Amino acid sequence: MDDRALLASIRHLIGEDETADDCAGFDLQDGRILVSSTDMLHETTDFPKGMTEFEKGWMSAAVTLSDIASCGAQPIQILVAIGLDDPSRLVPFMEGAVSCAERFGAKVAGGDIDSHTELTVVTTGIGIVEKAHYCRRSGASPGDLVCITGTPGRAMAALEGDERYRENLLTPIPQVEAGIKIGRAGASSMMDVSDGLAISLYDMSDASGVGFALDSAKFTLPAVRFGSAMEYYLYGGGDFGLLFCIPPARLSALDTDHTVIGTVVREKGVWCDGEIVEKRGYAHTW
Amino acid sequence: MDDRALLASIRHLIGEDETADDCAGFDLQDGRILVSSTDMLHETTDFPKGMTEFEKGWMSAAVTLSDIASCGAQPIQILVAIGLDDPSRLVPFMEGAVSCAERFGAKVAGGDIDSHTELTVVTTGIGIVEKAHYCRRSGASPGDLVCITGTPGRAMAALEGDERYRENLLTPIPQVEAGIKIGRAGASSMMDVSDGLAISLYDMSDASGVGFALDSAKFTLPAVRFGSAMEYYLYGGGDFGLLFCIPPARLSALDTDHTVIGTVVREKGVWCDGEIVEKRGYAHTW
Repeated sequence: MDDRALLASIRHLIGEDETADDCAGFDLQDGRILVSSTDMLHETTDFPKGMTEFEKGWMSAAVTLSDIASCGAQPIQILVAIGLDDPSRLVPFMEGAVSCAERFGAKVAGGDIDSHTELTVVTTGIGIVEKAHYCRRSGASPGDLVCITGTPGRAMAALEGDERYRENLLTPIPQVEAGIKIGRAGASSMMDVSDGLAISLYDMSDASGVGFALDSAKFTLPAVRFGSAMEYYLYGGGDFGLLFCIPPARLSALDTDHTVIGTVVREKGVWCDGEIVEKRGYAHTW
Repeated sequence: MDDRALLASIRHLIGEDETADDCAGFDLQDGRILVSSTDMLHETTDFPKGMTEFEKGWMSAAVTLSDIASCGAQPIQILVAIGLDDPSRLVPFMEGAVSCAERFGAKVAGGDIDSHTELTVVTTGIGIVEKAHYCRRSGASPGDLVCITGTPGRAMAALEGDERYRENLLTPIPQVEAGIKIGRAGASSMMDVSDGLAISLYDMSDASGVGFALDSAKFTLPAVRFGSAMEYYLYGGGDFGLLFCIPPARLSALDTDHTVIGTVVREKGVWCDGEIVEKRGYAHTW
């Protein structure tokens, strides 16, 4: 069983709408939406060996900032709950988390300190976005263009040993500014690709009730030294690019680097050059 | 080293103001304050033996709702990040968390599901309060009355084996309605006493720069079968009552059950019947 199947088992408790996105939205009733997201990371499964405490702190803030960014929102606050096996890790860890939050305009505003057998961190991000620019996984329409920011696959290449992409893996950059611009340009849907591009497309397909026809000629693949660039591009996790769909007429209003990789089609599913893309990516399993 | 000492070690990173309360506040610039709080609980240290999964879920929501309540705020959302050793625990756990959140007007709006060697839960609560009614640990002034809701010590009595108080320990009731009323009545400061009354008074003393003179004749002690009622009352953790200070003239405006237990004095510290109260309560230690 993986985390997507588990989430399905509690959908009746929480609601279809609430489980469809990485962020929860709350209407502030004044033209703004409050968005929030929470992520658990822990030593054995989420922090590649050799990471410094600063990098672990940075990444912990970055994962939740990326979720906030994927709504088109400006992050305002990060809360950090940390379970420590060794209290001396706290200061360098928090230096990393605070550096990351401040770089993207958010404040580490609180948290909780606990003892734990294994370093376990939960960061919660809160952001605000104007209702008109709020993006979700749902909303993609047939005819929209499918776009991404960044180059998926670099984090995976680093995980496989390519040192040139170490920063992509260990101090990823949440696409906060790009997310805000994409929302303002009028994107119909958006999410981050931190679990991998292919699985993210399937998640967006489910939420929007549409499909995606990709054209590999448009891909900007990472230059890899070993392994398959295409494999990393489609299935590698850990990159913090944004996947979004946008009506063609709106694209000219978008002032941020992006790659158009395909179009939205009526039938649910994901295809690349006419072939079905495998539904796999990063998932926790039990 | 305990968690209060550890928190002090990162105060320079996060800010004096941000580390002074259980909740972080954010000014929505429209007369409202957004408050947020996060709490980590895990199996071995936070869930007494014999608790059901439902009760663990309830308690996980309750601890953060209690923090939101202590600001005088109405909770709007709860996020639940859960690390599971066994995925079959998820549904009953979430049933408890959702029941608790809904009872107090909040929605479980999202979360994260992870695998972990030990059941580890972080709940984050978000609430909203009018700026004029926002309460913090700071703000108590000499001459104010010191008050509490509920009867501290019952959860501790249950932990020591008194079955009559099982619900106080395992399905505690966050004082959301009382907190809102206390804020509206014009309390000068407020916090919950989940770490114990004495240590909470010391925390409030630090934040407000004042002291507290308690009068034990005013205490409503729990009826205990063994152990010392006074020990449980002052030093027992796990109760979800609210500690607040309020100018005497405002007390008549307060329409919620409470006990006046003393007065605010100029000198920092905590005294009961003229004797210094020990500075101890619940704390994580390494």
